[in-house]
Amino acid sequence: MQAALDGRDPRFGARILWGLYGVIILSAVVLTLESMDSLPPLIHRLLGWAEFAILGVFAGEYLLRLWAAPSRWRYALSFWGIVDLLSVLPGLLLLQPQTQSLRVLRLMRVFRLLKLLRLRRASRRLEDALRASREELILFTAVAVLVLFVASVGIHFFEHEAQPEKFGSIPKCMWWALATLSTVGYGDVYPITAGGRIFTGLTVLIGVGIVAIPAGIITSELLRQKPRPERPSQGTQTETPTKTEKPMGDQE
Amino acid sequence: MQAALDGRDPRFGARILWGLYGVIILSAVVLTLESMDSLPPLIHRLLGWAEFAILGVFAGEYLLRLWAAPSRWRYALSFWGIVDLLSVLPGLLLLQPQTQSLRVLRLMRVFRLLKLLRLRRASRRLEDALRASREELILFTAVAVLVLFVASVGIHFFEHEAQPEKFGSIPKCMWWALATLSTVGYGDVYPITAGGRIFTGLTVLIGVGIVAIPAGIITSELLRQKPRPERPSQGTQTETPTKTEKPMGDQE
Amino acid sequence: MQAALDGRDPRFGARILWGLYGVIILSAVVLTLESMDSLPPLIHRLLGWAEFAILGVFAGEYLLRLWAAPSRWRYALSFWGIVDLLSVLPGLLLLQPQTQSLRVLRLMRVFRLLKLLRLRRASRRLEDALRASREELILFTAVAVLVLFVASVGIHFFEHEAQPEKFGSIPKCMWWALATLSTVGYGDVYPITAGGRIFTGLTVLIGVGIVAIPAGIITSELLRQKPRPERPSQGTQTETPTKTEKPMGDQE
Amino acid sequence: MQAALDGRDPRFGARILWGLYGVIILSAVVLTLESMDSLPPLIHRLLGWAEFAILGVFAGEYLLRLWAAPSRWRYALSFWGIVDLLSVLPGLLLLQPQTQSLRVLRLMRVFRLLKLLRLRRASRRLEDALRASREELILFTAVAVLVLFVASVGIHFFEHEAQPEKFGSIPKCMWWALATLSTVGYGDVYPITAGGRIFTGLTVLIGVGIVAIPAGIITSELLRQKPRPERPSQGTQTETPTKTEKPMGDQE
Repeated sequence: MQAALDGRDPRFGARILWGLYGVIILSAVVLTLESMDSLPPLIHRLLGWAEFAILGVFAGEYLLRLWAAPSRWRYALSFWGIVDLLSVLPGLLLLQPQTQSLRVLRLMRVFRLLKLLRLRRASRRLEDALRASREELILFTAVAVLVLFVASVGIHFFEHEAQPEKFGSIPKCMWWALATLSTVGYGDVYPITAGGRIFTGLTVLIGVGIVAIPAGIITSELLRQKPRPERPSQGTQTETPTKTEKPMGDQE
Repeated sequence: MQAALDGRDPRFGARILWGLYGVIILSAVVLTLESMDSLPPLIHRLLGWAEFAILGVFAGEYLLRLWAAPSRWRYALSFWGIVDLLSVLPGLLLLQPQTQSLRVLRLMRVFRLLKLLRLRRASRRLEDALRASREELILFTAVAVLVLFVASVGIHFFEHEAQPEKFGSIPKCMWWALATLSTVGYGDVYPITAGGRIFTGLTVLIGVGIVAIPAGIITSELLRQKPRPERPSQGTQTETPTKTEKPMGDQE
Repeated sequence: MQAALDGRDPRFGARILWGLYGVIILSAVVLTLESMDSLPPLIHRLLGWAEFAILGVFAGEYLLRLWAAPSRWRYALSFWGIVDLLSVLPGLLLLQPQTQSLRVLRLMRVFRLLKLLRLRRASRRLEDALRASREELILFTAVAVLVLFVASVGIHFFEHEAQPEKFGSIPKCMWWALATLSTVGYGDVYPITAGGRIFTGLTVLIGVGIVAIPAGIITSELLRQKPRPERPSQGTQTETPTKTEKPMGDQE
Repeated sequence: MQAALDGRDPRFGARILWGLYGVIILSAVVLTLESMDSLPPLIHRLLGWAEFAILGVFAGEYLLRLWAAPSRWRYALSFWGIVDLLSVLPGLLLLQPQTQSLRVLRLMRVFRLLKLLRLRRASRRLEDALRASREELILFTAVAVLVLFVASVGIHFFEHEAQPEKFGSIPKCMWWALATLSTVGYGDVYPITAGGRIFTGLTVLIGVGIVAIPAGIITSELLRQKPRPERPSQGTQTETPTKTEKPMGDQE
């Protein structure tokens, strides 16, 4: 059963797995369309039915996995067990009249997309990346927050008199610091005094790289775990070996 | 014939190849000037003639390559065969009265620029880069789209009430997520609630690197295939060895 | 004493150190809340008391460290000695009526956050990173400033007539150059003439990387000093070795 | 003489060289202040005199270097010879009544800053970086321009009807493509149609890295040529070896 859900069924092969992926994608489409108010009511009714069907599939998957697991408690408390449960629970609660109006439940249906991470190697990689860089990630996220905070205090000193509505308090300044040090630069807040601009210059020259470290760590870990084969000759043999390493859905 | 078009003719050498490149560049210039409505009508008439001449050259090139190919079907169905055909077809259809008004045909003339990729080593490199990183690219583009989607759902939860016209639906939120996580930050949409801004902070700290992975993979693959010679001494000998590796147009 | 403050006390262990960290974080919270004028006066009175208590803790820490140091002058003149002093001094001066109105003193309380850098390995790393790359950093910061200046002179030439209020002088143009070459792009200043836009294109294609070098040097040095253990097998043993390398607060 | 100007005079050592650097920096300051119209006329008169003095120093330096060079023609036609000449010529022409009004001459005084590149190792590095990556740089700048062009044609197709004043012609679209693919994102132009936004998403996911390649090549070459000493022990010995490699101004 487990094997069939993970795409290793002798008869159906990966078809069941792909079917489940299809349902997840459909779930994202439903989530997206539901958010668009301008659609005709017919579509919204259809979306309700689709949501109902998706819920049924995921509930069935959860129960089957629970039933087939060697140790039920271990599955129920494992990462994937919780993800599978969270894929069903918010939808179920949305059917209850007394919890229907909780907007956060609608949001939580996005957890279903985490099931996508079971996809082939993506899951394994993301897990390994986060585990290998966990300490680094915490350390440098703290450093990034520190840099953001110090930049905010600095710009507050220079700009809070010239632009009290935009730089009037440190939390407001942190919004500027975030937009600036991530180089997003929306343009809704920016310094206008000479001192604030010089401070921005120094902050940007030094701080941009530091704030980018957490994202960079995840990126480089994800890419570092790439199992690239040695390339003996520059020829066209790069096609074949990829086939051998496709045991889909070897998770849990 | 093949050799002559690829710049290995014993008599003309690379001159034919450079001529073809010149026509491609001219084609881009024509495309650019045609889009400028404020030019005098005389220029637009000249551009029509230039377009006609370019079409003739490319049609000639296609027929010659087809005629000279060892296996015509193989050339016609190869990547370059299709590019060469697509360089001619839209222009031909634009001459027909019944298809003249299809704007997409004008757009498709941009395919001609792909012929530029036959240029020296650029073609080989881009091909190798895309082939070597194809699976990676698909995997991480999917991950990037997933991150964009999750960020959109999150910001929709926080901002859709405060700014219904900008964050009112998930597709609208995806536009925000794209502009933010790519750090482009146009500034047309940005969160204004406290929750939305804190969510933006977390998303940016973690997500920016992940969304940048697909572009980074292509970049690093392109650069990794650089055939840099070993530098024995730090001296001025770096000039000479580059000459030897210039067999132009060794494609197909 | 020294050992106890650094979290190596035989009885209390790291608890004293964590307590100090807590006070530093509290200090940041106080700084943040103080900057928000809309809070009720009761909160502001509470913040005053909290500030007083924080000041007491840091003054006590400074005196204890000074008293416990093997060589008092050496500690007083060391980096951490100065940081510890600067954590106390601005707060003390703010209690004096004649210096209370100096806004810069409020700003200087941010130095307390530097004490956070004593945190585990972050301090050692940042120190090593800055020391290892000091010369590089100075050289490339100078190069970055040069690129910013040249870009400013260039854009001044192209834009100062079209937009005298935004590009009217080179210092104003430097603000544009900073926002552009750091890719922040607030959008408050941008070229509108054809010449200015072409110049921007060239500047961006070449200059963006150079201006990013200083931040990149710090980043790569910080990450380079990562003591990553060799991974003998791809298995799940990555969990355990991290425990052994946690001698907290081994500085000075 | 040559040696003295390059900071290797037995008596004055590096003092002459540092004096010249000071004059170059002064020249930048003069250029900056001259551009500020709001300064009192007295300052502008002082700036005129400073400019005169700077011109004298650079003219003297040029003549001395020319006189002291082993082969005068070789110096005059070398890179530094031309830079030294260009540092003097525009200023001289600005003194002539008939060429005084040429604004481009004022701009050209920025060439003086190139003399700064003689600074220690920066010059050698930049030269080596550009030489080592020249072919790469040309190739990928061409690829970047191609990507920018294709993106412009694409966005023109999607947006030119919705926003004719901003995306009405391909050159206008190139401004958008530059601001977007460099992630500067000023926010003066951005797509508003659904098609344009989806196209932007694809373009950004794939193209951002490619447009960043030229800047990345220069950056990585500059950093690759770092003569980092092997670090035998992790101790504090990193301070000393930097002294030995400071023969300043060993160029030409």
